[in-house]
Amino acid sequence: DTTASSAVEVDRIAADPTAIPGPIRRNTPKTHEIELVSREVISEIEDGVQFHYLTFGGQVPGPFIRVRQGDTVILTHKSAPENVLLHNVDFHSVYGTGGGAEATFVTPGQSQTIKFKAMYPGAYIYHCAVPRMDYHISSGMYGMMLVEPEEGLPEVDHEFYFGQNEIYSQQLAGEKGMHEFNFEDMRKETPQYVLLNGEKQAITANRRGALKVKKGEKARIFFVNGGPNLSSSFHPIGNVWTKTWREGAIASNPERFVQTALVPPGSCGIFEMDFPVASTVHLVDHALSRVANKGMMGDIIVEGP
Amino acid sequence: DTTASSAVEVDRIAADPTAIPGPIRRNTPKTHEIELVSREVISEIEDGVQFHYLTFGGQVPGPFIRVRQGDTVILTHKSAPENVLLHNVDFHSVYGTGGGAEATFVTPGQSQTIKFKAMYPGAYIYHCAVPRMDYHISSGMYGMMLVEPEEGLPEVDHEFYFGQNEIYSQQLAGEKGMHEFNFEDMRKETPQYVLLNGEKQAITANRRGALKVKKGEKARIFFVNGGPNLSSSFHPIGNVWTKTWREGAIASNPERFVQTALVPPGSCGIFEMDFPVASTVHLVDHALSRVANKGMMGDIIVEGP
Amino acid sequence: DTTASSAVEVDRIAADPTAIPGPIRRNTPKTHEIELVSREVISEIEDGVQFHYLTFGGQVPGPFIRVRQGDTVILTHKSAPENVLLHNVDFHSVYGTGGGAEATFVTPGQSQTIKFKAMYPGAYIYHCAVPRMDYHISSGMYGMMLVEPEEGLPEVDHEFYFGQNEIYSQQLAGEKGMHEFNFEDMRKETPQYVLLNGEKQAITANRRGALKVKKGEKARIFFVNGGPNLSSSFHPIGNVWTKTWREGAIASNPERFVQTALVPPGSCGIFEMDFPVASTVHLVDHALSRVANKGMMGDIIVEGP
Ligand SMILES: [Cu+2]
Ligand SMILES: [Cu+2]
Ligand SMILES: [Cu+2]
Ligand SMILES: [Cu+2]
Ligand SMILES: [Cu+2]
Ligand SMILES: [Cu+2]
Ligand code: NA
Ligand code: NA
Ligand code: NA
Ligand code: NA
Ligand code: NA
Ligand code: NA
Ligand SMILES: [Zn+2]
Ligand SMILES: [Zn+2]
Ligand SMILES: [Zn+2]
Ligand SMILES: [Zn+2]
Ligand SMILES: [Zn+2]
Ligand SMILES: [Zn+2]
Ligand SMILES: [Zn+2]
Ligand SMILES: [Zn+2]
Ligand SMILES: [Zn+2]
Repeated sequence: DTTASSAVEVDRIAADPTAIPGPIRRNTPKTHEIELVSREVISEIEDGVQFHYLTFGGQVPGPFIRVRQGDTVILTHKSAPENVLLHNVDFHSVYGTGGGAEATFVTPGQSQTIKFKAMYPGAYIYHCAVPRMDYHISSGMYGMMLVEPEEGLPEVDHEFYFGQNEIYSQQLAGEKGMHEFNFEDMRKETPQYVLLNGEKQAITANRRGALKVKKGEKARIFFVNGGPNLSSSFHPIGNVWTKTWREGAIASNPERFVQTALVPPGSCGIFEMDFPVASTVHLVDHALSRVANKGMMGDIIVEGP
Repeated sequence: DTTASSAVEVDRIAADPTAIPGPIRRNTPKTHEIELVSREVISEIEDGVQFHYLTFGGQVPGPFIRVRQGDTVILTHKSAPENVLLHNVDFHSVYGTGGGAEATFVTPGQSQTIKFKAMYPGAYIYHCAVPRMDYHISSGMYGMMLVEPEEGLPEVDHEFYFGQNEIYSQQLAGEKGMHEFNFEDMRKETPQYVLLNGEKQAITANRRGALKVKKGEKARIFFVNGGPNLSSSFHPIGNVWTKTWREGAIASNPERFVQTALVPPGSCGIFEMDFPVASTVHLVDHALSRVANKGMMGDIIVEGP
Repeated sequence: DTTASSAVEVDRIAADPTAIPGPIRRNTPKTHEIELVSREVISEIEDGVQFHYLTFGGQVPGPFIRVRQGDTVILTHKSAPENVLLHNVDFHSVYGTGGGAEATFVTPGQSQTIKFKAMYPGAYIYHCAVPRMDYHISSGMYGMMLVEPEEGLPEVDHEFYFGQNEIYSQQLAGEKGMHEFNFEDMRKETPQYVLLNGEKQAITANRRGALKVKKGEKARIFFVNGGPNLSSSFHPIGNVWTKTWREGAIASNPERFVQTALVPPGSCGIFEMDFPVASTVHLVDHALSRVANKGMMGDIIVEGP
């Protein structure tokens, strides 16, 4: 083993895209107490392919955090006692050195608490930011904090949460067994896997199941690109982004009817989509060599007559 | 031969940038009957360098399709009988599974017809989307469908049509003879050629001839990036995009005086430009290592006193 | 030596981020006489690592040029007599063949003067554009010309100037001694160094010193991405871009609260940021494998209680 990690095994890494706290209907600020737990685990990228994941909460992307502009967050970062590496958290939604990274730096079994106010609206990535943070993020340590604007977001029928990251491995995609981390391929930015929610085509019928909506409904997609290196050309096959807030910058005007939205690493996108036709929508990175073998696809089945 | 293809040879692959149906002056919807023919052909990337192109209509990019928002399209996809591979078409302008890909899937000599309504305005790519679609698109199977907004587009003096795609070959750029496809380089996203309209510097005086405009005129550029993997940093040397609809999202406000526009793979851009000075404009991907040896350049000569 | 260059040594390549001409308070046009001097020099990327830089003015990025829309520029491009290569300048802010490149082409010791009017507002790159221009830009030959809109820019407390470029070397990052240029790695777009102001982490306490601002102040960042090939995912760690003019297109509306802005090669960005919290801000390319070993970071220390 070239990369130290624990031997904790988990059956599923892929975050449930529907596990999102509900829309905020408050008009007044609130204080949230939130715990983020760094967990080093072994799990499968695809059947028979193991990887030493580094995660927040044992899932990729990490837990979706939802607050309102002006809210206060008391955030505890805890490192699971089984861990062997150091971790912290950089929140792009926070003013302050490292976005909180220095104050949340912990050894295995320890925890640190920070308090901050969410001062500006938008969808922001959080990620581990220790030295070799590219390795930690590639291995899964990223998630989204949504800071809703004071007036809230328009109602939709569904909200879904997705995260993209690329994995650099010493084995070829699909080779059975443990995939060890490949620092030289990361330097060259040539990954073996590019994943949506941490597993090869996790959110499809072939693995964890596709999402389902009904014809005529409307959905909002929250998308975080952990990277660590690749921009995503995020596209819904058989559909179009009716509204696009590029980089999650929700205080700006959305662009209309965008087919493919470039989302840089270390950023987010917010997308709205309609489902006027019964069909299957495939969410992909339209750098298409990342879809089949490398695994970057997720499905939404639109049920209807 | 590692990649199956027919032996049909054609003299010129580069689409004529001026071969665009005229602007739409209707106020009422119309029904179009359109035929797209998949053609596998051998042609030259540059003098003495052969390649097994996969195309729509024997040209790269494929035929420019122009409709109005609300129009109905009856589209027939036909596969030339000399073909040996399977093909289909995914239209980003269409709601429905695969953007029509499943319903247009054909074997050599067959055809399939679909009917759809163009529901949202913008410039949208269409492309082959069979398994290994990255190989099919890299080999030339992409084009543009423009869905004009109901109110139409402002008048300009010229409209030009360009498409970018990258080719992954087992030989180095410039090496004489047949260039066979290189799947490993496509996996690494390191092409040998990056082309504007399918040939090395096709639209320049050295090959198929530069475009010509007159000082004081205004042009609109329709640009489609097939990819399959690279974003284009599309720039007019010696000029500037006076108006830019990034990703072809024409229902949004254009950005003004953009020097270099990022267009992701699987997307389009619409650009307006003025020609106040007699000069030669070179259209390039400003990732400049793609220009000289790899071939990504096209010229507009601005004639005038 | 594989790449011809002179033996002139300079101690510091990194441009001073504060060396910016003051904001323009005129209401009437002006004529500027400006001299840009191409200089080939040897200097250090980091301690003990030498490189044959090609520069404008012996610094990276080259001198910041500031004019007002409608101003006239009489620009003299001079090549230092110690040079051995040919050079010229392409200004993205100029209408005309090569953005002035053909008219400014000079041999060592020569000079050429051009006269032009800055017709459109924005932040524009200038760069050498001789054959193998990717090699010249990678080696340092790029800078920014700001064309202020007629109404000027809002007041801020600080303006800072940064440039990003990637270096392709035959040695690994950090290897002591002379680093020779690597044309094959440039073809593959896999650099060894990605730099802010031409040296590894130049604008940090470890090298040339961090920038300093006071809590409560506001700054404007002028950022030019020379490339020659990589897009930058420009991000302020521990902060956010309160206003973003992507591609330097200042005639467009800025986007608000952007965490990470994609700036293509051959383009610029203008960013405003607030400093509500005493902290250290790290400017990075959020393609994070470019930060530590490859060197792409610069610091702003926010002093305050
Ligand atoms: Cu970590
Ligand atoms: Cu970050
Ligand atoms: Cu095909
Ligand atoms: Cu597509
Ligand atoms: Cu030069
Ligand atoms: Cu340029
Ligand atoms: Na932050
Ligand atoms: Na692998
Ligand atoms: Na579509
Ligand atoms: Na080749
Ligand atoms: Na120009
Ligand atoms: Na090196
Ligand atoms: Zn192991
Ligand atoms: Zn720090
Ligand atoms: Zn599609
Ligand atoms: Zn062959
Ligand atoms: Zn499907
Ligand atoms: Zn230029
Ligand atoms: Zn040397
Ligand atoms: Zn020229
Ligand atoms: Zn950050």
